[in-house]
Amino acid sequence: MAVGATRGLLRFLSYGSGKLSVMHAITIDQPGGPEALVWTEVPDPVPGAGEVVVEVTAAAVNRADVMQRQGHYPPPPGAPPYPGLECSGVITAVGDGVTGHHVGERVCALLAGGGYAEQVAVPAGQLLPIPQQMSVQEAAALPEVACTVWSNVVDIARLRKGRTLLVHGGGGGIGTFAIQLGKALGATVMTTARESKHAQLRALGADLTIDYTAADFVAETQRFTDGRGADVILDIMGAKYLDRNVAALAPDGHLVIIGLQGGRRGELDLGALMAKRASVSATTLRARTAADKARVVRGVRDQVWPLVDAGTIRPVIDRTIPMAQAAEAHRLMESSDHLGKILLLP
Amino acid sequence: MAVGATRGLLRFLSYGSGKLSVMHAITIDQPGGPEALVWTEVPDPVPGAGEVVVEVTAAAVNRADVMQRQGHYPPPPGAPPYPGLECSGVITAVGDGVTGHHVGERVCALLAGGGYAEQVAVPAGQLLPIPQQMSVQEAAALPEVACTVWSNVVDIARLRKGRTLLVHGGGGGIGTFAIQLGKALGATVMTTARESKHAQLRALGADLTIDYTAADFVAETQRFTDGRGADVILDIMGAKYLDRNVAALAPDGHLVIIGLQGGRRGELDLGALMAKRASVSATTLRARTAADKARVVRGVRDQVWPLVDAGTIRPVIDRTIPMAQAAEAHRLMESSDHLGKILLLP
Repeated sequence: MAVGATRGLLRFLSYGSGKLSVMHAITIDQPGGPEALVWTEVPDPVPGAGEVVVEVTAAAVNRADVMQRQGHYPPPPGAPPYPGLECSGVITAVGDGVTGHHVGERVCALLAGGGYAEQVAVPAGQLLPIPQQMSVQEAAALPEVACTVWSNVVDIARLRKGRTLLVHGGGGGIGTFAIQLGKALGATVMTTARESKHAQLRALGADLTIDYTAADFVAETQRFTDGRGADVILDIMGAKYLDRNVAALAPDGHLVIIGLQGGRRGELDLGALMAKRASVSATTLRARTAADKARVVRGVRDQVWPLVDAGTIRPVIDRTIPMAQAAEAHRLMESSDHLGKILLLP
Repeated sequence: MAVGATRGLLRFLSYGSGKLSVMHAITIDQPGGPEALVWTEVPDPVPGAGEVVVEVTAAAVNRADVMQRQGHYPPPPGAPPYPGLECSGVITAVGDGVTGHHVGERVCALLAGGGYAEQVAVPAGQLLPIPQQMSVQEAAALPEVACTVWSNVVDIARLRKGRTLLVHGGGGGIGTFAIQLGKALGATVMTTARESKHAQLRALGADLTIDYTAADFVAETQRFTDGRGADVILDIMGAKYLDRNVAALAPDGHLVIIGLQGGRRGELDLGALMAKRASVSATTLRARTAADKARVVRGVRDQVWPLVDAGTIRPVIDRTIPMAQAAEAHRLMESSDHLGKILLLP
């Protein structure tokens, strides 16, 4: 990512040829702390076949961006090098072979990277419409969390009406969305979070809030479900919670792991898993192919967007921060003091 | 299970009242080696509501029976205390509320226990018809393996045409059935087995046979799939193979574990699982409720039985042994020298 080094040359090429032009994006010259995020001039994106370019109104911060900044989560091949997995904005260019989209259309998008920028190129299959009664800016808070939660909780773990869902880290962007989607599907929703966030999470629909710093979530989950356990657990801790998550599962339950904040290697008691006929899945959205992302986006548009349009699920936005100050947003994310999404405005 | 102790009393009651009568079954007075299996007089089963009684023509031996004999796998509540998870025979009595079945009907059945007996009571939802062009005796080899393989490989792991399946222990009853079902579904099938069994497993349809005593199944699987790995792995080893099975999985792959012959607690690399968006499930069939077993049996009747009727899948039977000599059958099962199913004839 020697973007900074070629900046002058790009500006020269841009102004000299009249074809290339520059925008600003957050670049990472060297992996490190929040200060590694630098607002830099870079070349404008050009839409490839099947892609559109979106002028970014807002981008949202995800924990994966922090990992990318630290050097632990390189962008997949072909993705923009800048961080940012979701954004909203207006289409400014349409590549070859794209149908059903036009310049000037307001959209939000699931990205493989590049949201921390004034413009980003994105495969058309990863676009979603701005939900009804929602500003373009607010819609930036939705694509990544909606796709992550739907693909794990519904597509993989098959949560449905009458089942029980345990959401770890209910106060984050993923958590606040998962609580609302679980309730909208007719499930009973339990969640772990700091006590200071409990009232807000209950207002979002959580039936049980567990202060993980003071209580054992296994005992609380078993008590609340009359000893049955949770049908689906959405986890961000990985190894640290593996044994206890299996203990908290119901028969035929499904543990879906989307974060490894508590480590990657853990002991799994297959006998306990077998006694419950239970499953453990671990996924990331970013590494999926564009075709697979488009399949997930279709599922979200069909099954989740009507709930967002109706106002049943709303984005929870902690605050907005100028994109040039992305470092401040990362410090906040790492403190876990936020509730819901942090948006960056270019 | 103090069945032996009450034998005389039961015989007295039986002959005295003219209502109870006795049959023979294999009982286990004390858990232990094969000699713990004793052919004993016990009371006849009585059909409960929703059940039929089957006069057993043949019962098949499963590894779970060995575990039950050793004291590691007690029968679930309400199940007959005698071993035996599948049988075939003729209906001799029909309980209240059973429709669609009649005395004299030839059937095979998935059991929660009690197959090692002259008669067994079974919920009607667990009955399957004798496949076309098959003897009643042969059909005893099918219900447990068909339900186990279908529920794991198709219902849970969603194997389908064009995918790849790795079957561990291809030479057993489960393995020989899984190889055939995989091929019938249009999958590419790889299997581990002792080399002496390879020719027969290739004749059943295996595309790749791996001698696990001489070759690394991860490397062989990766080589045969051009580095992609297996979409579905059906495992009987548990902890011992956990890390290597994850390494052998394809992206979006699913490891289904139905045996813990290699131990129950193993380290799971969630980072490796996440990089592949893969899943691990562990199941047993026996502990499912009667309603859930009936659901599995319906799936098997709809999706597997037509393949058996057509001769595409056939039971692989190693040998038949008189039921009174069940100990000999268990010794053979524990030696793993058999290929396919071992049948017991009362």
